[in-house]
Amino acid sequence: MLVHRLKRLLVGTPLPTAQARHERLGKATALAVFASDALSSVAYATEEILLVLVVAGAAALSYSLPIAFTIAVLIAIVVSSYRQTILAYPQGGGAYIVSKDNLGAVPGLIAAAALLIDYVLTVAVSVAAGIAAVTSAVPTLYRYRIWLCIAGVAAIAIANLRGIRESGKIFAAPTYLFIASVFVLVAYGSAGAIFNFIGEAPYPPHPPGLEGVGLFLFLRAFAAGCAALTGVEAVSDGVPAFHPPEAHNARIVLVWLGAVLVSLFLGISYLTLDFGIRPVADETVISQLARHVFGTGVAYYEIQLVTMLILLLAANTSFADFPRLAFFLARDRYIPRQFGTQGDRLVFSNGIVILGGLAALLLVIFRGDTHALIPLYAVGVFISFTLSQSSMVRRWFRLRSEGWWWRAVLNGVGATVTGLVMVTIAVTKFSHGAWIVLLLIPTLVLLFLAIHRHYDDVAAQLSLEDFAPPAPMTNTVLVLVGDLHKGVVRAVQYAQTLSPSAKAVYVETDPERTRRLEERWGKWGMGAPLVVLNSPYRSVLGPLTDYIEQLQRQGGENMVVTIVLPEFIPARWWQQVLHNQTALLIKGQLLFRRNVVVTDVPHHLRR
Amino acid sequence: MLVHRLKRLLVGTPLPTAQARHERLGKATALAVFASDALSSVAYATEEILLVLVVAGAAALSYSLPIAFTIAVLIAIVVSSYRQTILAYPQGGGAYIVSKDNLGAVPGLIAAAALLIDYVLTVAVSVAAGIAAVTSAVPTLYRYRIWLCIAGVAAIAIANLRGIRESGKIFAAPTYLFIASVFVLVAYGSAGAIFNFIGEAPYPPHPPGLEGVGLFLFLRAFAAGCAALTGVEAVSDGVPAFHPPEAHNARIVLVWLGAVLVSLFLGISYLTLDFGIRPVADETVISQLARHVFGTGVAYYEIQLVTMLILLLAANTSFADFPRLAFFLARDRYIPRQFGTQGDRLVFSNGIVILGGLAALLLVIFRGDTHALIPLYAVGVFISFTLSQSSMVRRWFRLRSEGWWWRAVLNGVGATVTGLVMVTIAVTKFSHGAWIVLLLIPTLVLLFLAIHRHYDDVAAQLSLEDFAPPAPMTNTVLVLVGDLHKGVVRAVQYAQTLSPSAKAVYVETDPERTRRLEERWGKWGMGAPLVVLNSPYRSVLGPLTDYIEQLQRQGGENMVVTIVLPEFIPARWWQQVLHNQTALLIKGQLLFRRNVVVTDVPHHLRR
Repeated sequence: MLVHRLKRLLVGTPLPTAQARHERLGKATALAVFASDALSSVAYATEEILLVLVVAGAAALSYSLPIAFTIAVLIAIVVSSYRQTILAYPQGGGAYIVSKDNLGAVPGLIAAAALLIDYVLTVAVSVAAGIAAVTSAVPTLYRYRIWLCIAGVAAIAIANLRGIRESGKIFAAPTYLFIASVFVLVAYGSAGAIFNFIGEAPYPPHPPGLEGVGLFLFLRAFAAGCAALTGVEAVSDGVPAFHPPEAHNARIVLVWLGAVLVSLFLGISYLTLDFGIRPVADETVISQLARHVFGTGVAYYEIQLVTMLILLLAANTSFADFPRLAFFLARDRYIPRQFGTQGDRLVFSNGIVILGGLAALLLVIFRGDTHALIPLYAVGVFISFTLSQSSMVRRWFRLRSEGWWWRAVLNGVGATVTGLVMVTIAVTKFSHGAWIVLLLIPTLVLLFLAIHRHYDDVAAQLSLEDFAPPAPMTNTVLVLVGDLHKGVVRAVQYAQTLSPSAKAVYVETDPERTRRLEERWGKWGMGAPLVVLNSPYRSVLGPLTDYIEQLQRQGGENMVVTIVLPEFIPARWWQQVLHNQTALLIKGQLLFRRNVVVTDVPHHLRR
Repeated sequence: MLVHRLKRLLVGTPLPTAQARHERLGKATALAVFASDALSSVAYATEEILLVLVVAGAAALSYSLPIAFTIAVLIAIVVSSYRQTILAYPQGGGAYIVSKDNLGAVPGLIAAAALLIDYVLTVAVSVAAGIAAVTSAVPTLYRYRIWLCIAGVAAIAIANLRGIRESGKIFAAPTYLFIASVFVLVAYGSAGAIFNFIGEAPYPPHPPGLEGVGLFLFLRAFAAGCAALTGVEAVSDGVPAFHPPEAHNARIVLVWLGAVLVSLFLGISYLTLDFGIRPVADETVISQLARHVFGTGVAYYEIQLVTMLILLLAANTSFADFPRLAFFLARDRYIPRQFGTQGDRLVFSNGIVILGGLAALLLVIFRGDTHALIPLYAVGVFISFTLSQSSMVRRWFRLRSEGWWWRAVLNGVGATVTGLVMVTIAVTKFSHGAWIVLLLIPTLVLLFLAIHRHYDDVAAQLSLEDFAPPAPMTNTVLVLVGDLHKGVVRAVQYAQTLSPSAKAVYVETDPERTRRLEERWGKWGMGAPLVVLNSPYRSVLGPLTDYIEQLQRQGGENMVVTIVLPEFIPARWWQQVLHNQTALLIKGQLLFRRNVVVTDVPHHLRR
């Protein structure tokens, strides 16, 4: 009851199914909900590039700008590719569905495994980066960052358990504030850089590093920056959540997203380089940049606040995507079917709870450190990009609809480029953590296939095809009696409603008690015969199962034995420990015997 | 199944009730089993006295001898007192039974609470001291002492789950080896001291302490030494475990025990003082004494080994006593009745498991340190001594049997002396930990009384006295259907054996699915009518309970509604997670509704 009340308080009252259609998002709200993952990555993508380059010395940092431009081009390619997907899959074109449709089950499952992992990482990385924005502004909180991360995940999970539209409302304002604030930062900062009213950041001289940057390090910096692309696919996954016409609106939002993302990312990368800002342990690059441009005043704190908010909103994107993908996988019987049922607030509660739990676990393991999580990140997303775009190529070749060849070329370029990036990320980040993901994906795929096989097995066993109409069933009813009280009398009465020939069974451990029971049975036995079984080992179960087996030998294949157990239910749950758990044990043991049904007859106690 | 096999391996095969009488102990075995607690305390009692006195400087250590003599006299008084108890209570004269009989329920419960606490402490203190004997000999093991303690408790608990006689066999030899070895140590050491072929222990000069010993410190040293008396009452508690004539044999064993205890304790206290041995952190006093007398050779290691063994045996005493006392309390309905049932090896398994768990917990909390546990120890024992002896005085005055007045004087002296010691212990050790026990005892007594009240309540509610023969019961049978497969067909068939008018109930969440179900119902519904309930909130339970309530309003007081649930049981337990837990949820919720019975019809799956 307490748990129930707590759930209602946190999650809200149940929503009727009829309300489901109204849970749709307008374009502006949809941008806030689906684009925040990609947009928020500007809060850390530049820093991750710099962190790799700084190994080769301060001079190497200037390579960040060509890398940023390459990534901007990559974003443009991926956005164009995905606009095709939205058109082709207006019912939601997640990589799983698209790959399964065009390439087959296993590629679909690979995409699904990659995405599930990346959704968990999105939550972990975004929350860690969001808390880093807070601890950059308020350094005294740095030592509590893991706890702050956990609190952040919990808050988002609860918001999502309440339902998707309410989350949209909660999070729309911060996204637009973030976009506006970073635009102002970039514009004012650029003006300051051009007209020279803001100087360079006052850094101590950097220790000299390696001369020049090797190709591997360059590629690793590029791979790190590719974190900026994660989340671009969220729009095409979520098409059905848009207001009609869904596909049209989703394509528009995707272009908005791409344009905003490229502008913010390039702007921040340029300014960071121009002011000579370098990554440090306890303050983010964005925080340093904002502090340098605006000084430590209201504008600075506003930037940190909205950065934190959009990162939490990015984590929130996964809370929409993960349960949705889990739903598709459950519907196709690749994961437990519990993920396929909506909770009473019209959200897939199980997926939300699992996602929150796994993300919190990751945050504890990696101690809330964004940089430690980044090498695991993005591999999965690029695997799913590649599979999804390859599927589209296959699809155009198959359908040959109008304009198929230029569409195939567009998606082909997307597939090739994202495939190359995927290999680059896997190779350059392998030893830094990407191996975990590359090991986990095939493991998950095998698990999905095993679960699918089990469900197929069960369905075949339960199928009514070729099932001969069953022979009539007979039922022998026994009441297990350990004593004689009101509860037992009721149970005997109940057994007699099931079968007029119901018998009572008593397992004897002490002949004296048997004698007393038999004396009273005449008055209170309701006319049911009393069978006494001997138990030399004081076990109730042994003699009972022997007796059941004996009855079943006599009764044949189609006889079921029903064991009626008188059970009393104390008024308060903790009183349960004061009562014998014999009934529970007997039920547990008899559950696995064929043709035996166990029925408790509860007798409710007062106080 | 695995759990079951493991249990058999550890605990052995079941024993028939008929074998119970043979589980009796001869005098020699009984001494090993019941006297070891008291005897083993010579391994630490002297050290505890010295540890208190050393606060006042090395010179104060000489007070240990008068204290030891006082304790020897105390032992003699308690033994004489308890010989009366054995005679009066041949069925087992534990402080609980004796106090309850003569003083009333509450004093009995106080004694019981005190004893239960002391049994747990006996296990913890004895195992900690036993492991200290090991780590004194092999100092490298000192850092693993907590784990060694836990392993010791586990080993003893398992031995006891196998049954009491086997434990007697396992532990008889070590007791006699201990007695013999310590006698040799005392005899050879005394000869060496008298004829001066062993010198003083080569201690560095002790820093000067307080001049003289204050009364409080003296009493505290005495209180610490009183740990030597714990366990003396074990014999009188265990009279029924002796070979007949039980009381006669028990009285003889008790005198043996007293004589051996006094000799060993005085001998060790004398030698320790004579050789000038002082307590140190990482080696026990007995270990130092044996090393000094015999040198670090075979004889020394033998002493350490048998000391460890007898201390484990002392812990074992509690594993006989705790479950026995718990049995009496459960029989009188002061603690959960699960403590009143014998396991399949004729031992009270629940008591053994609880005792082992609590002792292990204490050892972890107090980090396996004997000295930290000692202040909690012995308060309880002296409370029970005092109550038990006072009860005997009351009894003699009541019965006025032959020789009643001198017997009353004997027990009166015992009661007075142990009462004074109890107060001394409580006062001098209060701030060192005794307060915990003094707080816990009344708490437990209140808990016992609350449990008793609950059982009385339940018995009154279930009583058939003044119970009018119940009106005939009617039964409405419903099968809850979520789908249509072999398991459902079987469940419908089963429901029809219970009642020819059984109906199927389907909770609709999607009208399309309802339509398909209804189509197939004609063929596979076995003629049962299908009731469709609407569920706007996708909850199965809500519409079902509404429907049940509606039926119950129509059916009246004496109608029971039986809900038949088709359930499939996967072949392997882990497959359970792949299936909907709806059945379990429904059972849990309906359990608390009056006049509703829930019946699972299991359908067993292969693979």
